[in-house]
Amino acid sequence: MKNNYKIVIDLLGSDKGPEEMLEGARLVLEEFPNVDVILAGPKSLVDVAGLPAGRCQVLNAEKTVTNYDNPVEAFYRKEPVSVFLALEEAARNDEVIGVINAGNTGALFAGAIRYLLADKKVRPCVAAILPTTQDGFTCMVDTGASIDCGPVQLVEFAHLGSDFMKRMYKLEAPRVGLLSNGVEPTKGNKLVKEAHALLAQDPGIHFVGNIEGNKTLSGLCDVLVCEGFAGNQVLKNSEGMAVNLITEIVKYGKQHQLPAAQQIVAHLMSRFDFASLGSGVMLGTRKPVLKSRGSCDRVAIKNAARILVNLAENKSMYDES
Amino acid sequence: MKNNYKIVIDLLGSDKGPEEMLEGARLVLEEFPNVDVILAGPKSLVDVAGLPAGRCQVLNAEKTVTNYDNPVEAFYRKEPVSVFLALEEAARNDEVIGVINAGNTGALFAGAIRYLLADKKVRPCVAAILPTTQDGFTCMVDTGASIDCGPVQLVEFAHLGSDFMKRMYKLEAPRVGLLSNGVEPTKGNKLVKEAHALLAQDPGIHFVGNIEGNKTLSGLCDVLVCEGFAGNQVLKNSEGMAVNLITEIVKYGKQHQLPAAQQIVAHLMSRFDFASLGSGVMLGTRKPVLKSRGSCDRVAIKNAARILVNLAENKSMYDES
Repeated sequence: MKNNYKIVIDLLGSDKGPEEMLEGARLVLEEFPNVDVILAGPKSLVDVAGLPAGRCQVLNAEKTVTNYDNPVEAFYRKEPVSVFLALEEAARNDEVIGVINAGNTGALFAGAIRYLLADKKVRPCVAAILPTTQDGFTCMVDTGASIDCGPVQLVEFAHLGSDFMKRMYKLEAPRVGLLSNGVEPTKGNKLVKEAHALLAQDPGIHFVGNIEGNKTLSGLCDVLVCEGFAGNQVLKNSEGMAVNLITEIVKYGKQHQLPAAQQIVAHLMSRFDFASLGSGVMLGTRKPVLKSRGSCDRVAIKNAARILVNLAENKSMYDES
Repeated sequence: MKNNYKIVIDLLGSDKGPEEMLEGARLVLEEFPNVDVILAGPKSLVDVAGLPAGRCQVLNAEKTVTNYDNPVEAFYRKEPVSVFLALEEAARNDEVIGVINAGNTGALFAGAIRYLLADKKVRPCVAAILPTTQDGFTCMVDTGASIDCGPVQLVEFAHLGSDFMKRMYKLEAPRVGLLSNGVEPTKGNKLVKEAHALLAQDPGIHFVGNIEGNKTLSGLCDVLVCEGFAGNQVLKNSEGMAVNLITEIVKYGKQHQLPAAQQIVAHLMSRFDFASLGSGVMLGTRKPVLKSRGSCDRVAIKNAARILVNLAENKSMYDES
């Protein structure tokens, strides 16, 4: 860790409130002595948080874009909007290695398009890095930012996801799968069938065909391409089922006084820990933007910072630094 | 059990082959003394299976529609097709209380529209009855039969699902939820937003709003409405995650010699047993059609028969008779 990095953290928009994000920033500063933070949010809150002043700047904003606002209209507000300030800062400040945000996805997406687009012809997308049962990772794109997209965009997701997996996991030819309702090329909705034909004839893609919903975490592909609505279902459903089963084990373990139940739960939570891996990675931007879950806690923010540092140092994604 | 019932079983199209379906028929005859079976498939195989001749008829067909065939073209074949023979028999034979099939969904759907439609203006759909964490059941429609449908069709699913839950679970006003990527009415793809508006103003529907992918099994609604592609993802993903976690527990239990792991696995499998509940129920047909999973075994066929008997006797869905 030689360089000095800056990470922009948007304090507003998460379910647990700016205080939890500030605690996340505190953990980042403790864990990474070479990382300073730039905090977008209410200066009054930062002032009382007692973070080391020399390592902490503020972009003052009292408001952000909520799930009930129209993200595009928010551009025309007179008052500063934290998510846009954060992205603008990342665009103009060369020391910034990335942005962490846990607020409204639409606003983050609109802001990223305005301030951080890598290629004006390619819309960005949000990938999730999911743990597979083969002890590897699958990059699922898109997870909810691009809803109602077309087949050409799914091919762009395949390229963005492949580039990411080449860079982060040093894979030569990442295997690209397409989420569908059956493995046969004839299966799928209109969008998936059209995308299947395009992916199959794209020489830049190592296409391995359709992947069914029960095989998303099976390690059959390195990049799983899907439209945002379907990807959001896969992501949330996987997490929901993991929570359901773990809750059931806890209940059953208590009822039957099985101490091993606790041990099994701890193992499963480390093995399928969607909360700590839970940051989405925006692909197609000039700098990495991490979209943490609305429900994220301070540890998730620290983990997101680790990903940004690893990306900046060209290490694999989850290396301990 | 007073009446004599007949159940039509399509022997062809399942992953485990007609022999497993024949063993399922054998279990049905053993379990339900008042049920006879009508088997659609190769007569030569039935002849050597040694089922009681007096309780077993055959509709001879060597072929069915595979996942690689076009279901509609299959109507124009000269040779008999088992799935169509099965549905035609159900339509014309008053003693038949329902059909069990484990083959291609498209063919079953096309055949049901041709032979068994309840209302010519309403396309049928396939529901899954999913166990919730609240010890109840949610009827998810559609699970893959209606791909690329429109908002009006989603409203029809809501009505068909509500009618089913009123009948089978004696609910007065089943709560209808809409699968989306956020709880706010502004969340969703174009289809979901349009359906939301229609459902909210439909006086025949007790609409409770959007349901996110991590809450599909939370018991927040009795009927979960979704387009077939998304529903297929939820269904298969839930099953896939359950399998992943259970596999991990087995592995971990062996490694660490935890006998309690086996006990926990047995409990989880009874609690979240998608395989035995795994029959889809076609709604919108004049007689119930059960769509078993391609991978179903003989026990799943027996369980499907139990559902048909309960439906015929107007009992709740999974009552032991």
